[in-house]
Amino acid sequence: MRRIKLTLAYDGTGYHGWQIQKDLRTVQGELERVLSDIEGAPVPVAGSGRTDAGVHALAQVAAASIGNPIPVVNLRRALNRLLPHSIRINNAEEVEAGFHPRFDAVAKTYEYRIYTAEVCPPFERRYVHHHPYPLNVDRMVAAAPLFTGTYDFSAFAAADDRDALGLSKVRTVFDAQLATTECVLRFRVRGSGFLKHMVRNMVGTLLEVGKGNLHAGGLQRFLAAGTTGKAGPRAPACGLFLISVEYPNQRVLA
Amino acid sequence: MRRIKLTLAYDGTGYHGWQIQKDLRTVQGELERVLSDIEGAPVPVAGSGRTDAGVHALAQVAAASIGNPIPVVNLRRALNRLLPHSIRINNAEEVEAGFHPRFDAVAKTYEYRIYTAEVCPPFERRYVHHHPYPLNVDRMVAAAPLFTGTYDFSAFAAADDRDALGLSKVRTVFDAQLATTECVLRFRVRGSGFLKHMVRNMVGTLLEVGKGNLHAGGLQRFLAAGTTGKAGPRAPACGLFLISVEYPNQRVLA
Repeated sequence: MRRIKLTLAYDGTGYHGWQIQKDLRTVQGELERVLSDIEGAPVPVAGSGRTDAGVHALAQVAAASIGNPIPVVNLRRALNRLLPHSIRINNAEEVEAGFHPRFDAVAKTYEYRIYTAEVCPPFERRYVHHHPYPLNVDRMVAAAPLFTGTYDFSAFAAADDRDALGLSKVRTVFDAQLATTECVLRFRVRGSGFLKHMVRNMVGTLLEVGKGNLHAGGLQRFLAAGTTGKAGPRAPACGLFLISVEYPNQRVLA
Repeated sequence: MRRIKLTLAYDGTGYHGWQIQKDLRTVQGELERVLSDIEGAPVPVAGSGRTDAGVHALAQVAAASIGNPIPVVNLRRALNRLLPHSIRINNAEEVEAGFHPRFDAVAKTYEYRIYTAEVCPPFERRYVHHHPYPLNVDRMVAAAPLFTGTYDFSAFAAADDRDALGLSKVRTVFDAQLATTECVLRFRVRGSGFLKHMVRNMVGTLLEVGKGNLHAGGLQRFLAAGTTGKAGPRAPACGLFLISVEYPNQRVLA
């Protein structure tokens, strides 16, 4: 069997998230369907992690093992021909047999986009969180880097994160910045890994800072609170993009 | 009655074009529905011109007469609250009673976007024509300005342009340019007015130049052919945007 690493973009609008679910349209489900068609046998697909319903990806990473000897360039073309246009394979490459997109990942980057002008352009509406209300943007810019560091991010995890029950919620954020233009705030965060809803709860917390409901010190208390805090609220899914997943010196075979 | 000029953007993807049609979702139909709700009586809406099914607008202009004394800023907010998010009113102003968005227009600008890379990002797919095949872009750039001038554009009109039967198909193109980046070709054309399908047929003709099926001289022959030529083929609707409609020194009342 050959191990294939796929790098893909998707518009999450019409999907019930990444993870395969019976009778629901999911990105993993679409990938398994078309890869199985190409292989002529069921092909399980592993991802670098789940994305929630409505969340987008510029470069999600997935992997599958196939016996079909099709060259990777042709495989990419075949996948793009068979997949809906809302999912696009930007790269397919053959990698070592043991490659796992989730367990081998060393860093992930997310971006969250907030549109602040009164009227949101119709072409942007699926790809931003529209928040046309007063915000102290300077305070948000100053607060964003406070997320950098190694913390128990429990206060920023989903209350129902059952998969993580009993597992450590300590993660390291390498970098967190809020960049601003006239109408758009972009929160970009790079870290070792992220809990369910973690980025959306970070953004919801930053918005509370912008609204004046929370000071920087309050944000820091959530980071120090471990399992006893509850930050947020959670920002809507449509503003969130998985931007990249990084792997250590991965050897590409083809 | 007050005459209201509306400047609006729309994502044409889900619409059967601008013009109202029974039982079909159209932009004019949506506008008439919500304006009539606000007025409490039927309100006809006039546009600067029709856009085809799937064509987008950054700044279409429409007008309606209402008796409701609502301030224009509040009217804009009310419209945006009632309209689908795929239609956004960017501006509402009170103008002279005789204003007609079609008959008073002195220039219109359209832009057509062609995406040339092999893989089209899922976020762009509704807003470009994806053409991932070889093109001689230099020839297209050189040919685009040839459309500038006053011609009988019959060869670029829709074959079924019944509304224009017997009417002059002479139009003046003030400016036509093809701008290029690594993955995107943008054809921008400003003119006195445009026939049905005219811009899409101009783009289809430019693509023929890019493919090597037509020389610049062939394009010029279509312009000189009057009613006897048939240029094209017609490029798909989704790449086309109505960018602006211009009026002479219009006096804004409120």
